[in-house]
This record gives sequence, structure tokens and C-alpha cells, in this order.
Amino acid sequence: MISIILVEPENSGNIGAVARAMKNFGFSDLVILNPKCDPLCEEARKRAKWANDVLRRAKIRKRIPRNFDYLVGTTARLGTDYNIPRSPLTPEQLAEKISNRKIGILFGRESTGLRNNEIELCDFTVTIPTKKAYSSLNLSHSVAIVLYELSKDNIELSKFPAISKKEKEVLYTYIIKSIDRMKFSTQEKKKTQKIIWKKVMGKAMLTKREAFALMGFFRKLE
Amino acid sequence: MISIILVEPENSGNIGAVARAMKNFGFSDLVILNPKCDPLCEEARKRAKWANDVLRRAKIRKRIPRNFDYLVGTTARLGTDYNIPRSPLTPEQLAEKISNRKIGILFGRESTGLRNNEIELCDFTVTIPTKKAYSSLNLSHSVAIVLYELSKDNIELSKFPAISKKEKEVLYTYIIKSIDRMKFSTQEKKKTQKIIWKKVMGKAMLTKREAFALMGFFRKLE
Repeated sequence: MISIILVEPENSGNIGAVARAMKNFGFSDLVILNPKCDPLCEEARKRAKWANDVLRRAKIRKRIPRNFDYLVGTTARLGTDYNIPRSPLTPEQLAEKISNRKIGILFGRESTGLRNNEIELCDFTVTIPTKKAYSSLNLSHSVAIVLYELSKDNIELSKFPAISKKEKEVLYTYIIKSIDRMKFSTQEKKKTQKIIWKKVMGKAMLTKREAFALMGFFRKLE
Repeated sequence: MISIILVEPENSGNIGAVARAMKNFGFSDLVILNPKCDPLCEEARKRAKWANDVLRRAKIRKRIPRNFDYLVGTTARLGTDYNIPRSPLTPEQLAEKISNRKIGILFGRESTGLRNNEIELCDFTVTIPTKKAYSSLNLSHSVAIVLYELSKDNIELSKFPAISKKEKEVLYTYIIKSIDRMKFSTQEKKKTQKIIWKKVMGKAMLTKREAFALMGFFRKLE
């Protein structure tokens, strides 16, 4: 169970946008510590769009709840500080570590992020890789990116997934038959054709619909 | 070279937030097609924060520029349509395909996304995996997630990367020496200790600073 904990957020619009991102990626437990703005005002509700339920059920708290197995802090990429507590993982590395424990992910203030004493409460920190020239991400962008990374491998995107190895081989059979029937000046050229066709089809990551259409094409060549 | 192309954006704040996300991840070429709002108004500039340069240099156009080698459309996850052009890649798959060609990535209107005739202009489409219950992402969140995915492998996050295999082995030598000097009731238990310490250190993905501190600890045990 993953909870998003906003620490003293300053901008209602951001809170709404966080709620929306949470619902987009299938998360619902939002904790807000000492908000410096109204988390239920019109701007927040407007930005939450169809995630007003997440916003309404948000828990407003004075301090970090004690019932998390693990606390994760998020920080902007480091400057030049030689700061031991901030040896961050990437969101991708976080995704590899997440188990079904109760995990709270802290996101700091828009203006100044998390304070050192807040980071010290965390088991570890996560940093989104950004350019040094401008490393400060918008609050809701940070939440969206972390939750995207945590959920992406569990969401089956397409009703039309790429064809399997077996299906690819059926298609290749058709293609190879066609090439075999054609005249090339050398055997080498024929072989190259087969290799290139395989490569191109592989890179295209065909759906079933697309693969069947292509098979239809190659059958027509017979 | 990657350009972000916003198609008829309706909300100035979103345009500003897109500019900020672009600068965060090291992109600067923003094209805006027929904006339905003022891309340089106060709200846009406020949301762009330190990326006002990206905003100011944005190209306002009536139609999609012709000079891209590849056009990529972004679409929300599919409903139940059996719609051939929308067999999407994930942002991760897009990142694997990106070469140093001139690539334009289209992001549709906040309200209705890209139209079918716009998608047909694209070489392929990309969809961010979201939950079916609420699949519509905020415009700037979509841009931030795609650019995060396109840039993450090229940004060295930490001045303190995890230690290398070789450094890990030096640390293990210290740990194994310590375990060897200790008394356990069976050899089996000693072996288990060694295996578990390796596992734990591996999962912790130590930085140099951390590894040296631990080595110091184990040397003290001698």
C-alpha cells in the first residue's frame, strides 16, 4: 500500500493535480501535512478534475503518521553538497524495491522541498533525474513521474499487445517463402533480404491486426 | 532533436508547465499549433518558472511543420475501439527507438486530445499506461512523463553512484573476514550469514561514502 504524503504544500492547484495523477495511476491514499493553502478550494477541485474523490478523502495531519513500514523521501537532484542522507535511488530503482508493505512517499514544499530533519526520518530518498541547469520539478509532475514508474509494469496497456515469438515466426515463414520465390543475382542478397525483413518486423513490434494484414499481403504474392 | 508540439492547447497554465518540464529534462524546442489561449500570459509565465526562455522561444504555427523525420502522436489509453492507427508504444518503448533524427511529438488538446486525421499523420503513437478508471492525464503531466522517460538513461543522477562490482567485492572481503572470525554453532550458519550479508549489501546499492563507512566498521571488529 503506497501513500502520498505532501509536506506543507503551498499551492492548491498542485494538490488538485496530485490527486488527479494519483487516480490516473491507481493510487488513492493522500496525506497532507499542515497545508499552507486550502486543499479543497475551487482551484484544487478544478485541477483534480475526475479525482475529487481522492481530494475529499485526503487526510489532513499535523505530523507524519507512525504506521508506515517504510518512509521514502523525494528530493531534487543534488547540488555540490556532500550530504550523506541524500544518496538517492531513481524512481526506477524504487519500483524494483517496492513490496506490499505500507510505504509512505514524502514530497516536500514547492519552495524549499523537504527539510533535513524530515529526510532523516526516511529510510531512503528518491530523486528524479533532471538536468543540472534546472533541477526543480513542479510538485505534481514529481508525483506523476514517481507513480507512473511504480505502476507502469502492472498496467497492461494495450488490448493489442505486440505479437508473440511464435506469431512472429509464422509471419517470418510467409516472408521467407516470398523471398525464396523471388530472383536475386546472388544467394548472398537473398540471405540479406531475409535478415533485414526480420529486423524491420522486429523493430515494428507488430500487433496481431497488423501481422495478419501483412500475412495477407505475403500470401497474395504466392 | 526532439520537439514538443502542442496541438491547440486550451490552458495557458498548462503551456507554462510544459515549458518547465521541458527545461527540467533538457529539451527546448516547443511548437504551439493554433493556441486557444495566450501562451505568454502571466499564468503561463508563472507556471513556467525558470523556463520562461523556452516559452518565449516557442514557435506559434498554424500547421505541423514539415521538417520532421518522424512524427509521434500521443493518445490516452484505448477504450474498446478496434482502431488500427492506435496500436501504441509505451514511453519506454519510444525511448528505445529514439535516434538522432528530427522527431516531433504531438500532444493533443486538453479536452479532446488528437483528432484521427492528426494521428494519421504520425508514424506511430505513444500511450502512457494509466488505469482504465481514469485514463486522461493532465497535458503537462503527459509531457513530463514522456520527457522523463526519454532523458532518464542519459542523465547521471548522482555524484555518488552505487559502488562497482569490484568495490562491492572489497567490502565483502571485510564482511567475510569478520564472519569467519566469529563463532557459530554450525558451518552451515556461517555460510548462511555470508550469503545474507551479500544479499543485504547488494539490495542497499551502497554509495562509496556508505561503503567506506561500513568497511571502517568491519575493520574495527578485527
